[in-house]
Amino acid sequence: MLKMSTLFLRTLRDDPADAEVASHKLLIRAGYVRRIAAGIYSWLPLGVITLRNIERVIREEMDIAGFQEVHFPSLLPRDAYETTNRWDEYGPALFRLQDRKGGDYLLGPTHEEMFTLMVKGEYSSYKDLPLSIYQIQTKFRDEARPRSGIIRGREFVMKDSYSFDIDDEGLEISYQSHRQAYVRTFDRLGMKYNIVKAVSGAMGGSKSEEFLAPCPTGEDTYVLCPSCGFAANVEAMVTKVPAQDFSKVAAFEELDTPNTPTIDSLVAVLNEKFGGGFTGADTLKNVMMMADGKAISVLVPGDREVDVKRLQENLSGVHELRVFEDADFAKFPSLVKGYIGPQDAKKSGITVYADPRIAPGTAWVTGANKKDRHARNVVNGRDFTPDSYVEAAEVRAGDACPECSTAVIIDRAIEIGHIFQLGRKYAKALDLTVLDSNGKSQVVTMGSYGIGVSRAVAAIAEQTHDEIGLNWPVELAPAKVHIVAAGKDDLLFDTAIELATKLEAQSITTMVDDRRDASPGVKFKDAELIGNPVIVVVGKALAEGNVEIRVRKTGDKKEVPLTSAVSAIAELLK
Amino acid sequence: MLKMSTLFLRTLRDDPADAEVASHKLLIRAGYVRRIAAGIYSWLPLGVITLRNIERVIREEMDIAGFQEVHFPSLLPRDAYETTNRWDEYGPALFRLQDRKGGDYLLGPTHEEMFTLMVKGEYSSYKDLPLSIYQIQTKFRDEARPRSGIIRGREFVMKDSYSFDIDDEGLEISYQSHRQAYVRTFDRLGMKYNIVKAVSGAMGGSKSEEFLAPCPTGEDTYVLCPSCGFAANVEAMVTKVPAQDFSKVAAFEELDTPNTPTIDSLVAVLNEKFGGGFTGADTLKNVMMMADGKAISVLVPGDREVDVKRLQENLSGVHELRVFEDADFAKFPSLVKGYIGPQDAKKSGITVYADPRIAPGTAWVTGANKKDRHARNVVNGRDFTPDSYVEAAEVRAGDACPECSTAVIIDRAIEIGHIFQLGRKYAKALDLTVLDSNGKSQVVTMGSYGIGVSRAVAAIAEQTHDEIGLNWPVELAPAKVHIVAAGKDDLLFDTAIELATKLEAQSITTMVDDRRDASPGVKFKDAELIGNPVIVVVGKALAEGNVEIRVRKTGDKKEVPLTSAVSAIAELLK
Repeated sequence: MLKMSTLFLRTLRDDPADAEVASHKLLIRAGYVRRIAAGIYSWLPLGVITLRNIERVIREEMDIAGFQEVHFPSLLPRDAYETTNRWDEYGPALFRLQDRKGGDYLLGPTHEEMFTLMVKGEYSSYKDLPLSIYQIQTKFRDEARPRSGIIRGREFVMKDSYSFDIDDEGLEISYQSHRQAYVRTFDRLGMKYNIVKAVSGAMGGSKSEEFLAPCPTGEDTYVLCPSCGFAANVEAMVTKVPAQDFSKVAAFEELDTPNTPTIDSLVAVLNEKFGGGFTGADTLKNVMMMADGKAISVLVPGDREVDVKRLQENLSGVHELRVFEDADFAKFPSLVKGYIGPQDAKKSGITVYADPRIAPGTAWVTGANKKDRHARNVVNGRDFTPDSYVEAAEVRAGDACPECSTAVIIDRAIEIGHIFQLGRKYAKALDLTVLDSNGKSQVVTMGSYGIGVSRAVAAIAEQTHDEIGLNWPVELAPAKVHIVAAGKDDLLFDTAIELATKLEAQSITTMVDDRRDASPGVKFKDAELIGNPVIVVVGKALAEGNVEIRVRKTGDKKEVPLTSAVSAIAELLK
Repeated sequence: MLKMSTLFLRTLRDDPADAEVASHKLLIRAGYVRRIAAGIYSWLPLGVITLRNIERVIREEMDIAGFQEVHFPSLLPRDAYETTNRWDEYGPALFRLQDRKGGDYLLGPTHEEMFTLMVKGEYSSYKDLPLSIYQIQTKFRDEARPRSGIIRGREFVMKDSYSFDIDDEGLEISYQSHRQAYVRTFDRLGMKYNIVKAVSGAMGGSKSEEFLAPCPTGEDTYVLCPSCGFAANVEAMVTKVPAQDFSKVAAFEELDTPNTPTIDSLVAVLNEKFGGGFTGADTLKNVMMMADGKAISVLVPGDREVDVKRLQENLSGVHELRVFEDADFAKFPSLVKGYIGPQDAKKSGITVYADPRIAPGTAWVTGANKKDRHARNVVNGRDFTPDSYVEAAEVRAGDACPECSTAVIIDRAIEIGHIFQLGRKYAKALDLTVLDSNGKSQVVTMGSYGIGVSRAVAAIAEQTHDEIGLNWPVELAPAKVHIVAAGKDDLLFDTAIELATKLEAQSITTMVDDRRDASPGVKFKDAELIGNPVIVVVGKALAEGNVEIRVRKTGDKKEVPLTSAVSAIAELLK
């Protein structure tokens, strides 16, 4: 039983100044978390209980699926991460430190290396596999922009699992079994979510899906097909444009287009010159970018920007990607800024990547590589040839579903889970092999599967809150019942405590607002803010032997006799 | 149900090369933990379950006592630790690091500062107190000599509580309530322990006691009085020697004592000169030491060494203490090494500390501050006067109990808990005040209370193991029952699984050795090594409808009919 008179809790009337999203505001105001530093939070009692409830659900579902719990340290020696090259690749997001002897250590941002080595230490035969092991553990990432409270923190709790199989078929089975366990877990957590295709490039694997909790303030953007159900994060959205027959396209023609360094100015001149009908979509933009220090050209339709994150995830192996700055142009004097076309790219030695919309046979207006000059009828496959195709242009609502061509919807979400066929990258790097049934050594294939545990607290708060406060699913709330003693009479307080005792005896966790110095109004506001699913008012109605039961979610109220309150509440909670 | 056929576990036949103490050897061999780096361990499934069982017991007892759980990050900004001066004082044991912006952070070794600031953030009135809050959390200390596996690690799990009171009486009540909660906790954990007085100097507080688990390989030494029950760690042992009447002592007399720079050589010369009767205990040793860079002289009887740790804990505020090296002597040419006496100390300006055995009025043979010369009848209070008294000499079995003068016993132990009246040090430094009943601002007084959670796994293993393996108390074991299917017949395996299912249905956690490729001998050895309290053999006796039940602790065995096995086991576990 949690008594408000002694509970270590002070609710706040006002939103904290640094909070932008609802979950952040409410979790601070209702006394669940407190900020210690950027992206670093401490948990007050109500937060600890909620976090533990979520951990318990996750742990139960992992155990039911037959995954076994292990636990790694956070402080990890450099060696293994050096072997897989992640000591460097992780960049500034990795917290690095030295011990008293000068040895290099890191704070684990994710534990692929350690799990691989653990299995290597114990297992040696195909008979030992398949194996799925997990931990619920504190992770550290030095995010460039920690934000939204505990949604993107620098120290956070994560459940990470890894599967180990002898072959690809096994990996697929392990992957599906995690997928099902995640579905069950997020269902039990009462979350709305979509399972979307994700790009798996950076981690070196193949198949990958994300569990996204739709939320208007979410950091992730994804596409959803209202017709066939196709879903993908924008990075994994696929553009299908068939090759065109260009036999009827007129010859390449250079045009005088003075003062048209931008798409808008170019379209205006074209429409003036040719009597209208041109839009940005008819033009071809040559976006110059630096990819790990190498200049590349990226071709997208003139009415779309390059989505740098999307491009980077699809250019596997590229760690740093940015658009050209003036200093970069200075190094390539042959590039005529504002008038670049792909026709002469081969000469400059710059690799040309084309978005799939620039399909073979399509014809464009593009730069003529001369100041104030453009060209029309510039045909892919006749007048220029990209070195390769890559998803690069921004995705928009209305783009065609790659499965059924229906116009897709675009939505925002919080990533709450990620499942991933890692393959043999880590096992190969760290030499995790087992003997197969023929006694031959085989590299093990792995999957990696994550749930943001502390983030889930915020994601659930985002999805379930309303304008007056938090609003938890029954299984996750700090208490299932919140009893308010509304009045001054000792009898009200005694009755409230007595009812709470009876509920606790039925394993119904209960919070009692037994504060003598708080008004009923303050108590109701706090109860609504804190968000336990059932609120019971022990007040005036007690004179008639009744208490009021309110459902936090719907606002429904009814009076019931005190004598049947426990069974009425138990019924409501079912 | 844990099935050995799929459990992520490989037991080892041989002791690991780097393990010295039994718990370390057994926890590695039985597959509970694995070493990642010096003092850094990962936990395999059996270890995780045992650790969580211990955490659960601790959490339940803290909650019963009315302490509230909170949770802090491990990654902490420098500020608060700078304010209390611990950023520097902690020395090389503190893991320090910088984030991507160059901000200074530390990995929390203990959380006094953070708890103080948390309460400051929420509370402001005496009405809010008393308050006790705790966390179960991962701590980091860069130990100079991590050892004994998880007993002294660099990353470890600790339960730390803090109490907050308006006055000293309140602190005493909070302290006693923690003391009682610890007694209940360690009793439930099935540990043997002594509550011993500890020195509270370094943390700036007053009253302090340690919970020590007796264990021959323990790092801590403590004294115990077999008569009155007095117990103290050696640092807190008190020496009581009354002042002596020296009116009959002969006059100070210098002696020729050639080649006697050591106590032994001096005693030999004295016995030769005066016909015997002298021992080291008649001589006075002047041990020159550096205390935070300042030279001090420490007087102890010639037959005892200075216990540097004991001295340091009693010299409050001294962070670095060591005996003189040659370079130090070079800086004090007036000190005649091997022949120093306290008679001329005032001239040299060196502070003289005397062990209480050098009581006022006692007479000694000591150096005459001249090469090859000593003096006898050198009386404290007549021929020299120490600047102050401090417990400095090593403690020995047979020393007098400070309470009842009985000869004390000396024993070794592992520190498993520490309770501590911190007082106002942290509250003052971080300005944690509340208004008292008169509206006056008062600095809060605090207590700090710790239990080594991961260490407890090892300490319990130390106290309960036998020569064949681990041997857990019922509440802590990875499983309560360990069923061995001993044979090749399918019926044995089916029966074992069926029995396990029935036990699990009664909430009796069960492990089944259902491996087809392991011999009964290997299975029995593993069961004994792993240490679950009840071992059930489903083997030959099944032909008569029986199974064998063994009690791991006593070795007692009996055959019972399979049909009554569940109730027989449940009875045993009570």
